[in-house]
Amino acid sequence: MTKSAQTAVVGVTGYAGAELARLLLHHPRLKGKPPVFAGRMDEKDAARGGVPLEEIHPQLADNNGSSSLKVEPFSWERLKDHGVEILFLATPHEQSREWVPEALKHGMRVVDLSGAWRLTDTKNRAVYAFEDDGSDIAVKTQAQAVYGMPELHHKEIANAKLVANPGCYATSVILAVRPLVAAGIVDVPHGIVADAKSGVSGAGKAPTSKTHYMYAADNLSAYGVFSHRHTGELLEQIGIGAGDIVFTPHLLPIPRGIMSTIYVRFNDPQTHASVERIYRDFFAASPMVRIYEKTLPQIQYSVRTNFADIGFQISSDGRRAVVVSCLDNLLKGASGQAVQNMNVMLGWNEAEGLA
Amino acid sequence: MTKSAQTAVVGVTGYAGAELARLLLHHPRLKGKPPVFAGRMDEKDAARGGVPLEEIHPQLADNNGSSSLKVEPFSWERLKDHGVEILFLATPHEQSREWVPEALKHGMRVVDLSGAWRLTDTKNRAVYAFEDDGSDIAVKTQAQAVYGMPELHHKEIANAKLVANPGCYATSVILAVRPLVAAGIVDVPHGIVADAKSGVSGAGKAPTSKTHYMYAADNLSAYGVFSHRHTGELLEQIGIGAGDIVFTPHLLPIPRGIMSTIYVRFNDPQTHASVERIYRDFFAASPMVRIYEKTLPQIQYSVRTNFADIGFQISSDGRRAVVVSCLDNLLKGASGQAVQNMNVMLGWNEAEGLA
Amino acid sequence: MTKSAQTAVVGVTGYAGAELARLLLHHPRLKGKPPVFAGRMDEKDAARGGVPLEEIHPQLADNNGSSSLKVEPFSWERLKDHGVEILFLATPHEQSREWVPEALKHGMRVVDLSGAWRLTDTKNRAVYAFEDDGSDIAVKTQAQAVYGMPELHHKEIANAKLVANPGCYATSVILAVRPLVAAGIVDVPHGIVADAKSGVSGAGKAPTSKTHYMYAADNLSAYGVFSHRHTGELLEQIGIGAGDIVFTPHLLPIPRGIMSTIYVRFNDPQTHASVERIYRDFFAASPMVRIYEKTLPQIQYSVRTNFADIGFQISSDGRRAVVVSCLDNLLKGASGQAVQNMNVMLGWNEAEGLA
Amino acid sequence: MTKSAQTAVVGVTGYAGAELARLLLHHPRLKGKPPVFAGRMDEKDAARGGVPLEEIHPQLADNNGSSSLKVEPFSWERLKDHGVEILFLATPHEQSREWVPEALKHGMRVVDLSGAWRLTDTKNRAVYAFEDDGSDIAVKTQAQAVYGMPELHHKEIANAKLVANPGCYATSVILAVRPLVAAGIVDVPHGIVADAKSGVSGAGKAPTSKTHYMYAADNLSAYGVFSHRHTGELLEQIGIGAGDIVFTPHLLPIPRGIMSTIYVRFNDPQTHASVERIYRDFFAASPMVRIYEKTLPQIQYSVRTNFADIGFQISSDGRRAVVVSCLDNLLKGASGQAVQNMNVMLGWNEAEGLA
Repeated sequence: MTKSAQTAVVGVTGYAGAELARLLLHHPRLKGKPPVFAGRMDEKDAARGGVPLEEIHPQLADNNGSSSLKVEPFSWERLKDHGVEILFLATPHEQSREWVPEALKHGMRVVDLSGAWRLTDTKNRAVYAFEDDGSDIAVKTQAQAVYGMPELHHKEIANAKLVANPGCYATSVILAVRPLVAAGIVDVPHGIVADAKSGVSGAGKAPTSKTHYMYAADNLSAYGVFSHRHTGELLEQIGIGAGDIVFTPHLLPIPRGIMSTIYVRFNDPQTHASVERIYRDFFAASPMVRIYEKTLPQIQYSVRTNFADIGFQISSDGRRAVVVSCLDNLLKGASGQAVQNMNVMLGWNEAEGLA
Repeated sequence: MTKSAQTAVVGVTGYAGAELARLLLHHPRLKGKPPVFAGRMDEKDAARGGVPLEEIHPQLADNNGSSSLKVEPFSWERLKDHGVEILFLATPHEQSREWVPEALKHGMRVVDLSGAWRLTDTKNRAVYAFEDDGSDIAVKTQAQAVYGMPELHHKEIANAKLVANPGCYATSVILAVRPLVAAGIVDVPHGIVADAKSGVSGAGKAPTSKTHYMYAADNLSAYGVFSHRHTGELLEQIGIGAGDIVFTPHLLPIPRGIMSTIYVRFNDPQTHASVERIYRDFFAASPMVRIYEKTLPQIQYSVRTNFADIGFQISSDGRRAVVVSCLDNLLKGASGQAVQNMNVMLGWNEAEGLA
Repeated sequence: MTKSAQTAVVGVTGYAGAELARLLLHHPRLKGKPPVFAGRMDEKDAARGGVPLEEIHPQLADNNGSSSLKVEPFSWERLKDHGVEILFLATPHEQSREWVPEALKHGMRVVDLSGAWRLTDTKNRAVYAFEDDGSDIAVKTQAQAVYGMPELHHKEIANAKLVANPGCYATSVILAVRPLVAAGIVDVPHGIVADAKSGVSGAGKAPTSKTHYMYAADNLSAYGVFSHRHTGELLEQIGIGAGDIVFTPHLLPIPRGIMSTIYVRFNDPQTHASVERIYRDFFAASPMVRIYEKTLPQIQYSVRTNFADIGFQISSDGRRAVVVSCLDNLLKGASGQAVQNMNVMLGWNEAEGLA
Repeated sequence: MTKSAQTAVVGVTGYAGAELARLLLHHPRLKGKPPVFAGRMDEKDAARGGVPLEEIHPQLADNNGSSSLKVEPFSWERLKDHGVEILFLATPHEQSREWVPEALKHGMRVVDLSGAWRLTDTKNRAVYAFEDDGSDIAVKTQAQAVYGMPELHHKEIANAKLVANPGCYATSVILAVRPLVAAGIVDVPHGIVADAKSGVSGAGKAPTSKTHYMYAADNLSAYGVFSHRHTGELLEQIGIGAGDIVFTPHLLPIPRGIMSTIYVRFNDPQTHASVERIYRDFFAASPMVRIYEKTLPQIQYSVRTNFADIGFQISSDGRRAVVVSCLDNLLKGASGQAVQNMNVMLGWNEAEGLA
């Protein structure tokens, strides 16, 4: 177990990047060893040695109004000079696709926050624009690549050189459904419904007509019906077929947070106690999942934490359940889970720096 | 067909009451014949002849900062003196239960916005606190009482003396599901899921911990799982059994608007065209329902209108549909529908005063 | 007095344009005479005869999900063929600057919603990018151009061929301050403070970093300190010098509405009654201004109305006042005032179609 | 300098109480020494040894869904048994008035978050309902009581037995204005305007008509004009007279955060540099104030931090300034400042546990 590690973040300009920066800067194991921030930039910014971090995220400034932290011009040489051991990529799918093999060659271990390396099945991967010639299989095998959900793949993550950090919606649905399906109590062919709602930060920082305040505020809209690209993650990680789940995302008028309301039918009648037992057993070693006993979680409870919150109710005949699963899309749904993965990779306490 | 009519509103203090007042004050058939507003009040207010309407709803003031409209102390005599023909009750369930028979005795026709008279099945009615000795059956029969959804019961409403104005959630789900079930294409025993979300005005004007800004804002919460009292209306009006639908309401951080996302399975594969045809046929004579051809409705589209908006998508195998149904909970979900019912009762154009 | 008129709107795509379309489509004098909507468009849209209005603003669709209204390709010939008498320009400042003289040549009367024709003083006009060679003076003289605030310039508007519709912030401040300054009670050299707050629709429909939901929501930001371009309108219409007022706009996390909180010092002590008298006298003939007697207006009261709401409190020594002025930036602050101007231009009741 | 300390919190049920609990539970000096939580409760709760903290604030639950922390029944004996050294009172003004002398008798040092002990001048104190017989003077003298703003009174706080934690609005205005007035550059008799806006958490947790979501959302309202009870704090701590400032609070539709926009006139022309120098000198030893050099702070920047953010712009003639001051009303405006005061009282780094 290493005591500390040199980290680097590429792609710090977005919302997940800001959260990742914040978490790593305050991580108790990384004291005195701030992450290297790097990114592509124009010549002018490169000439001044990079862009001060607080120009991008004013809320990261310290009390002098200017921290010493900079986003440096990206180059593999610089990253190697810094002795980077864990590289976080918060970059577009296509760029992650291209850079991961290179980072591995340079001996870095990678936590990739994009969708580029999450999916095994070529069919599921078709939702991404990058070329898909099969060359990734060798990369993944050699890197012992794994889907980065510590609650499911703790051991593999500990050894992996490439950890594909899960999607935000996917995390919220998988954590709620996988335990029940694994326990064999769900009537899978009957079909599962996952009605999911996410805050606007999930739509990214680029100003578009859909992230305009006037579009999102005082509104609710469904999108990606029967077609959202997190669906493949659900199928592969829950272990079900394409016809077994309907997943509908909605855009909520809140800055952050996801709630998935999930409808399942059981093979045999269940009680609240029997279902709670399944969840508690499944997550017995998982410090970042909270099971709600009596009430249902609300989005507010998990926002600005790394917890995934799960609650549920059983119908009076014991045949159906409504499961409510909440998390912060930027933390457990992105950067918090990335840090959790780093902790596991380095043999540290899974929850360190995430309280 | 009457040219005009004298209306009265009891219970104008809430959000639905304010909308009802606004609609009736601007209704083209009621020009020069403003509704009588009446309510229970303390002696002091009674002594000054009632409470000026703009004290309760400042936004209803005219440009003198004070309109001449008052909420008068309630009494049957006063209502009769005013010659009230159509009485809107926006009163608590228990009060509506008590007052409706009396209003009918006085020869008034009633549109009741509470849940007191909506349900036929005693089992379904158990969700309300009022006593249920069966005496209501005679009242309803004599009054030719009807569930006040013009899209389903236009003819009965035209003749009814008592119209039970539907619940807001119920309206949103029934309008979306009834046409498909009536057409026989839905696999009802498989089960229907209605995941509904409502703005805070649906929770009423009383300040409670759940209507506190800090509770509702930046949040989403599910409630009434397997137990919301609008469920009975769904069963009776769609014509399905208690086990055939799971209905889950959520509290949205917006002032007004409802979206229900509904999941159905079909007996046989359908196309977008075949489903659209069913909806268009069903609502051919219904000016207040909009079917969306290519896109899905969003909450914003119907807020501050009396439209119910319905859109849908069909899975690639044609076996499942996601239906999105939106409306304004205070208009089509309450006061707008009440005015629509009045229009039908008086033989006027169903949409009059609702554009 | 004309009974009806043919109107046209150029620039219907923005928020003010949508409100203008809605108001004109429902205006009682324009029944059966919908406005012509015109705009520049690409060849493909031009080839299909224009863009259906509900593609741009879904909420303007009727119950068939598709109205017959189209935004036609813009040309002066088409407008003349339609017999346009009143042309509303909701176009960028530069375009208004160019098109107004042409519209006047074609014999149309113009209500221009941009800032292009509002300012007299060249210095004040420097905030706009258009060329300023002085040629506009002749245009304005010939058109009997006037600043389109009916509460100040009713007679001139009745005769004008060019009405420059005021800015939203400017309307809110001028209506509150002009009466007091005109009455001679304000210590103008002491300085006036106007702390103004506007909803996000005031920032326009273009997606920018500042209209992003994540920027505006849960936030408040000041901008344009000592430099906002509505300042010139304040100076010219209140009749004060550049050093006499500090005007600070803020971006509020709400869709629409403006509140200006205004601080003035009096030459001599005033009472609530004396100040109320001044306001009531000034607005005696103005149906769209509401003076609040006992309470202060809030943004909600005037949103979705064409009212400007004014309330105030006087310090115990009678020497200072805090005036609160609220309006809907898209209605009294833009399109509602434009329709009000049209009413005055055509000799109709100033408030017609605006209730 | 003590290494650690036993703290207690009375009044943990409100928003400030929750933040205080969170801060103390994570304070590095208090590891393994959680605060004692105490409050008045009914017999039933007392009988079960108190109320689990996560029943009051679900977001404080750990991953077992139930922490071991309880709010105990309040008694001085229990507090003494726990060895409480620093007592935080987040109680109503009247209760703090009564309990502080008793706590001092028991040898505890008190940080009082109410308004009970902040004001020196009897006139200013008249805004509070408690009896005011002058007996407090002896208490305050003996306790070396001080207004708990470390940026102004660091030394006195270090020795005080009673620290009166400032009001949220007051903190935001005093920090922005005191440095300029102390430097002698402000034309005080001319008058200062402080236009302040606060999120809804400032209005407390009790559900009232004004904290109802429907009242606060999509709205802005001014209140307490010429009469807000934080005014006394401004006068005493800035050192000005009652006629020298107009302070107007507004209720913002956001959960938390305060912005004060402040207007001052200078005796002599100033430059941005000269004013910045004054602020930087004044706060040279203050780690929790951030001076903005080029931009203005926004509410988002300081929310969920303990920073007070100050930025400003100077008019072109150098005679007037607009100062923008932002902070989180629950942190720097309440509980964060309380912890900052505790740090100073115990000789610790002022910012410890507040990063």
